[in-house]
Amino acid sequence: MSATAAVSGARIMAHIEALARCSAQPDGLTREYLSPELRAASDLVAGWMREAGMSARIDAMGNVAGRYEGVAPGLPCLMLGSHLDTVRDAGKYDGMLGVVTAIECVRALAARGVRLPFAVEVVGFGDEEGVRFGATLLGSRAVAGTLDPRVLDLADGDGVTLRDALGRYGRDPARIGDAARARAEILAYAELHIEQGPVLEAENLPVGVVTAINGATRLAVTIDGMAGHAGTVPMTLRRDALAAAAECVLAVEKRAANATELVATVGRLDAMPGAVNVIPGRVRFTVDIRSPRDADRVAAAGDVAAAIEAVCARRGVRAEIAKTHESGTAPCAPWLMEQLARAIAAEGLPVRELPSGAGHDGMAMIDIADIGMVFVRCKGGISHHPDESITAEDAGTGARVLLRFIESFQARRTA
Amino acid sequence: MSATAAVSGARIMAHIEALARCSAQPDGLTREYLSPELRAASDLVAGWMREAGMSARIDAMGNVAGRYEGVAPGLPCLMLGSHLDTVRDAGKYDGMLGVVTAIECVRALAARGVRLPFAVEVVGFGDEEGVRFGATLLGSRAVAGTLDPRVLDLADGDGVTLRDALGRYGRDPARIGDAARARAEILAYAELHIEQGPVLEAENLPVGVVTAINGATRLAVTIDGMAGHAGTVPMTLRRDALAAAAECVLAVEKRAANATELVATVGRLDAMPGAVNVIPGRVRFTVDIRSPRDADRVAAAGDVAAAIEAVCARRGVRAEIAKTHESGTAPCAPWLMEQLARAIAAEGLPVRELPSGAGHDGMAMIDIADIGMVFVRCKGGISHHPDESITAEDAGTGARVLLRFIESFQARRTA
Repeated sequence: MSATAAVSGARIMAHIEALARCSAQPDGLTREYLSPELRAASDLVAGWMREAGMSARIDAMGNVAGRYEGVAPGLPCLMLGSHLDTVRDAGKYDGMLGVVTAIECVRALAARGVRLPFAVEVVGFGDEEGVRFGATLLGSRAVAGTLDPRVLDLADGDGVTLRDALGRYGRDPARIGDAARARAEILAYAELHIEQGPVLEAENLPVGVVTAINGATRLAVTIDGMAGHAGTVPMTLRRDALAAAAECVLAVEKRAANATELVATVGRLDAMPGAVNVIPGRVRFTVDIRSPRDADRVAAAGDVAAAIEAVCARRGVRAEIAKTHESGTAPCAPWLMEQLARAIAAEGLPVRELPSGAGHDGMAMIDIADIGMVFVRCKGGISHHPDESITAEDAGTGARVLLRFIESFQARRTA
Repeated sequence: MSATAAVSGARIMAHIEALARCSAQPDGLTREYLSPELRAASDLVAGWMREAGMSARIDAMGNVAGRYEGVAPGLPCLMLGSHLDTVRDAGKYDGMLGVVTAIECVRALAARGVRLPFAVEVVGFGDEEGVRFGATLLGSRAVAGTLDPRVLDLADGDGVTLRDALGRYGRDPARIGDAARARAEILAYAELHIEQGPVLEAENLPVGVVTAINGATRLAVTIDGMAGHAGTVPMTLRRDALAAAAECVLAVEKRAANATELVATVGRLDAMPGAVNVIPGRVRFTVDIRSPRDADRVAAAGDVAAAIEAVCARRGVRAEIAKTHESGTAPCAPWLMEQLARAIAAEGLPVRELPSGAGHDGMAMIDIADIGMVFVRCKGGISHHPDESITAEDAGTGARVLLRFIESFQARRTA
């Protein structure tokens, strides 16, 4: 039996299905941070961890944490993980696949009695999506020790604060600092995740190596023109806010089309007053710009703002541009990318490197560890939707790659 | 005292203010068809008609109808009119100015004891805007005898049918045919109305002669692309419905900019799902095209549809285009335009001819009479809004022009 024969795509898919039943909605998947459903999912995960030969606990922040000791107890660990919370009406693989696959790999090691010169830990973070309290990465930021204690005052839609929710979950909100880990304890953080995009599928590849979790800039734009009767105002006397916004939408698209690995999107656009026979007097829209390179993103955001100003100046309408979000790129460590690439090549697969347009727990973990990520192909690039799906075959391939990576893992020599 | 000194812009403005107080909302103007407010306004108007030397009645459809006999009783009439209903949160001049000015002109004739070789009638139509029952021109279509009796089954937002509303208003719904007038009774229909557009103001003119009430074509367009994560789908793999719609909006604008007296507007646009981090998968928008020439409008609608199809084919998204409305142009009669132009010139003013982009009661009256219209300048082209306004001076100028037109009116010789 080869080392990789021990992981089972079918078992991974079965565990995914079991987790999908821990849901607040009977006909789909919604699992919020610190909910009874998260507790049920965490109990399942902790059980699988123990079956796989790990110790398991729920940490101070509600993360599930499992540990498989190395050749000696108490060694620094290779930390694997992903998240167990979901968006509303979610897919079954986003987050969960990484947790379940990591446990499957440890099970394979334990089955063969393999002990490595480092420990392996698996974390199922309780909050990555940020759905319940409106702040993302609460689980991984607690583990990284970077959580601002003021988040305890954040309230959910029912007015329940994070502080109260932790208490009801059996955690002491005064002790969330206990979830924090020290840099010296972690050799690296590696995460397997579905791609949530169409690149691997388009290139007929089951897996890819992530180069960076892209930084993002978001703009909120308001264009004020002049509303008027659609029948009575001649074209030459119009200051149509929607026509101006249409030019801006195309300028955003064009700026990204002319760049490498940069994407820019107008996702939301509201035209007011919004009647068939009224020239729109005001339009609000959003711009979302992402790139694996911060300098590219900042330059694109500047160009987009300048293009919007130019369009509006030429059309005699007024633009107001506000930056509503900015996060820097979390680059994956080249030495981890190299080891992940070797594991993929060992499976006889081409190594495709690609950036992650979506955010991940690595954005928090990078504060205490170098990070690496493997993407698994998903169908049609669809995510955050019940139609999210992967094949059992790709789940197996992802697990074999992760297991090879773990078994061959070489900690970086510190200078 | 000259003939025209007898009309008073100040009195017109005072009557406008009195009518504006007949409103369903305390802090603005809303007056629906067959409402208590319309009754109050109609009573005021009927009273002013009688003071001006006319007989006055409420007809079978709830229109106020006044008559000033000519040199002999029972002569065919020059019919003047406009409407007394309003949109929600309306301006004070749209419709009312034409009714009040016409009465002011008759008052001036009566004050001097002038009897003309024809009668003068003034109608305050009860419904032009169509707000209450969703069908426009109910008042003038009844007078033209073209009202489809099935409109009696139309219900308002509270489920009250037009039939019941007429009954409550003291009218017999079985007798709405009594409101119809015969072609032989009407020498012409002439209406004074605020422009509701910015053309006269831009050219520093108080009044203008309308050439036609523009026909209109409305399209409802749905573009189906593919939704996706704004961070993970590369630009080259996108089928962004909003970017496609943006090109369509600009194509609509460009087609109208390249035409004469044609306007085209995208007034409503909804991008779905409408989240900052999701590529829009579906966009719905409307197109409103108007022209004083039917052939131009039909050609433009065809070109716009073709442009939308071309944009969508090139971008790999799907367009569905439905025609939701089509109405032909109601041309003003050249012989009436000429007489109105002479009245304007007699005031020492340049004669500006312009089409009406908005609909008016003449669209119904044209079925039993030739129609003519005078526009009065309004501020900023604003209408259907509390900020709608005109000056007392322009009200006076409009009245003097209308009075000159009435006094000099020559019925068209029938062949």
